[in-house]
Amino acid sequence: MERIQTFSFDKLELECGKTLAPVTLAYHTYGKLNPARDNAVFIFHALTGDSQPAGRTCGGARGWWDPLIGPGKVFDTDKFFIICTNVIGGCYGSTGPSSLNPADGKPYGTRFPVVTIRDMVRAQARLLAYYGIERLEIAAGGSMGGMQALEWAVTYPERVGKVIGVGTPGRLSPQAIAYNEVGRQAIMLDPYWRQGDYYGREAPAAGLSVARMVGTITYRSEQSLEMKFGRQRANRNGRLEDPYLGLTDRFDVQSYLQYQGSSLVKRFDPNTYIYLTKAMDLHDLGRGYPSYEKALARIQMPTLMVGISTDVLFPAYQQREIAEVVNSQGGQALYREIDSPHGHDAFLIEFNLVEPLLREFICR
Amino acid sequence: MERIQTFSFDKLELECGKTLAPVTLAYHTYGKLNPARDNAVFIFHALTGDSQPAGRTCGGARGWWDPLIGPGKVFDTDKFFIICTNVIGGCYGSTGPSSLNPADGKPYGTRFPVVTIRDMVRAQARLLAYYGIERLEIAAGGSMGGMQALEWAVTYPERVGKVIGVGTPGRLSPQAIAYNEVGRQAIMLDPYWRQGDYYGREAPAAGLSVARMVGTITYRSEQSLEMKFGRQRANRNGRLEDPYLGLTDRFDVQSYLQYQGSSLVKRFDPNTYIYLTKAMDLHDLGRGYPSYEKALARIQMPTLMVGISTDVLFPAYQQREIAEVVNSQGGQALYREIDSPHGHDAFLIEFNLVEPLLREFICR
Repeated sequence: MERIQTFSFDKLELECGKTLAPVTLAYHTYGKLNPARDNAVFIFHALTGDSQPAGRTCGGARGWWDPLIGPGKVFDTDKFFIICTNVIGGCYGSTGPSSLNPADGKPYGTRFPVVTIRDMVRAQARLLAYYGIERLEIAAGGSMGGMQALEWAVTYPERVGKVIGVGTPGRLSPQAIAYNEVGRQAIMLDPYWRQGDYYGREAPAAGLSVARMVGTITYRSEQSLEMKFGRQRANRNGRLEDPYLGLTDRFDVQSYLQYQGSSLVKRFDPNTYIYLTKAMDLHDLGRGYPSYEKALARIQMPTLMVGISTDVLFPAYQQREIAEVVNSQGGQALYREIDSPHGHDAFLIEFNLVEPLLREFICR
Repeated sequence: MERIQTFSFDKLELECGKTLAPVTLAYHTYGKLNPARDNAVFIFHALTGDSQPAGRTCGGARGWWDPLIGPGKVFDTDKFFIICTNVIGGCYGSTGPSSLNPADGKPYGTRFPVVTIRDMVRAQARLLAYYGIERLEIAAGGSMGGMQALEWAVTYPERVGKVIGVGTPGRLSPQAIAYNEVGRQAIMLDPYWRQGDYYGREAPAAGLSVARMVGTITYRSEQSLEMKFGRQRANRNGRLEDPYLGLTDRFDVQSYLQYQGSSLVKRFDPNTYIYLTKAMDLHDLGRGYPSYEKALARIQMPTLMVGISTDVLFPAYQQREIAEVVNSQGGQALYREIDSPHGHDAFLIEFNLVEPLLREFICR
């Protein structure tokens, strides 16, 4: 089991104009940094991920990209020095809304400032500076992780060797913003949310659960829910429920959604859910540049965009479009699409399909 | 303005095994029943609709299918006797969870029994009997209205001349059940819901609003939200909000969703939302028949199924499939698809596209 590490620095000026001070990043590393310090690979986590993509966590589970990271794997720890941080705003060790506000020693709650994907990346750059790493060999991630990879490429183009984004957009669509808004409103609706000031008291678990439920629908696909659940009834302790009889008797898909919701509640801070979905809403690579296209013109390094055929959250056309815009401006982007019934979450499931694409791209 | 009418009868045995007693149906009629009583057309409303599809409501708005119903229109009131009821479980005059339970004179709340689309149809059949109408010339509706039309065709095949369903399935998909579940959980999460016992007190408005927000996303399409909102900022009283600055500053699409949510709150009962989404979940034409296909074999009358190209809630393939299954068993179903960017709600928007299809089908 890899040990969680932390790196702290004095302050970070944020895009919203506020300053976060001090800042701690929780992170994991795998493999060894070589003497030239040029074998670093940054892996970025998605919304509810953490800084441990590989190995066994303390709970015994495998990291979320474990099949891709390790000795001889595509992100080969015999070769690369892999880094993954919990993002700022997170709840897995990095400074976020559950951290103590130094002004009064109490948790920030909603006093935490609005953070962006770009802010996350700028904090990560501080960690690289600490390691004396001037340039990443690869920046890679899926979903919100891919947003960070792309933001790295646009913000620090000279410091990124190759970029990989799976199921990720260059800017969030209004539909994705809309789904995020539903999740946030559900959390805020929970009477235990108390304007975000619930630390040390009961957390808004039911609200976060509903947020996760709607998220889960967008991470799957109509096809995968049909395959997995159809119109089967839920099974509660060996008894088949009959939704035709009682208001709370359920189909299997309802039971599954509720399980997904209540599972997240055990491991995730509701305020972090609010702040990170907000950060995704704000994701727009073109921000601060003359245009979106001009921002993408900065991506001249080898780039791999992977779309998922059934992704309804960040549909495949979005990744294809990024590659097209990059290539129309002299870049060298590959677009690949995996054909999977699993929807957006294929980036955490379809390792057999994703791995060969990464290998082809990384090794060529 | 057409006058709302009511029809009451002693009791209705429901699919759940319980009895609803007494039962009132609120309804509107347009045109005149001819002496032969064979010119009746039943129009069915969708989830948040009412019994007034045409004319001006007391609020001054147009009925939800007004462009289709009237003198010389496709549902020609010079020719047809049009009937539309508020469904049982509803909140626009028919017996529903806000009605008084005769057992104690208090509102049913969640003591209201589970009702199905089939129960709604069986209640409507009682109204037809009152009018002495043995056979409908046409049964027509969109979304939940289409479910009622199809259920009429399967339950009373000898009593339906023609069937029209727009953007409607033969049985609800697990994905649609999942979206409904999110809406219900949001309502139940609202502390004002009080297990459904909120009548005479503050209603769970915020919960219903979140339910409507997620519903609204599924009624639109990614494309329509992109066209209408893109990444524009919300405008509050002439001031552009800046979502990059504040946690509650919004993009326009967030403002739109919140508006949709709060608008419904003013006119709809949250418990009815729970019961009618549940009724949709339970919609499965094959229930009680040897198979789904065998149930559809009962649909031998002329049938028009209309799909909407961008419908993500009840996608076009579902209507096409109904027509195919019907036709594979000797039926006479037409499938037509409208090409609209508006998603599911096209059945309430794209009258210029829907009307010619209905006219072709009804007049041929």
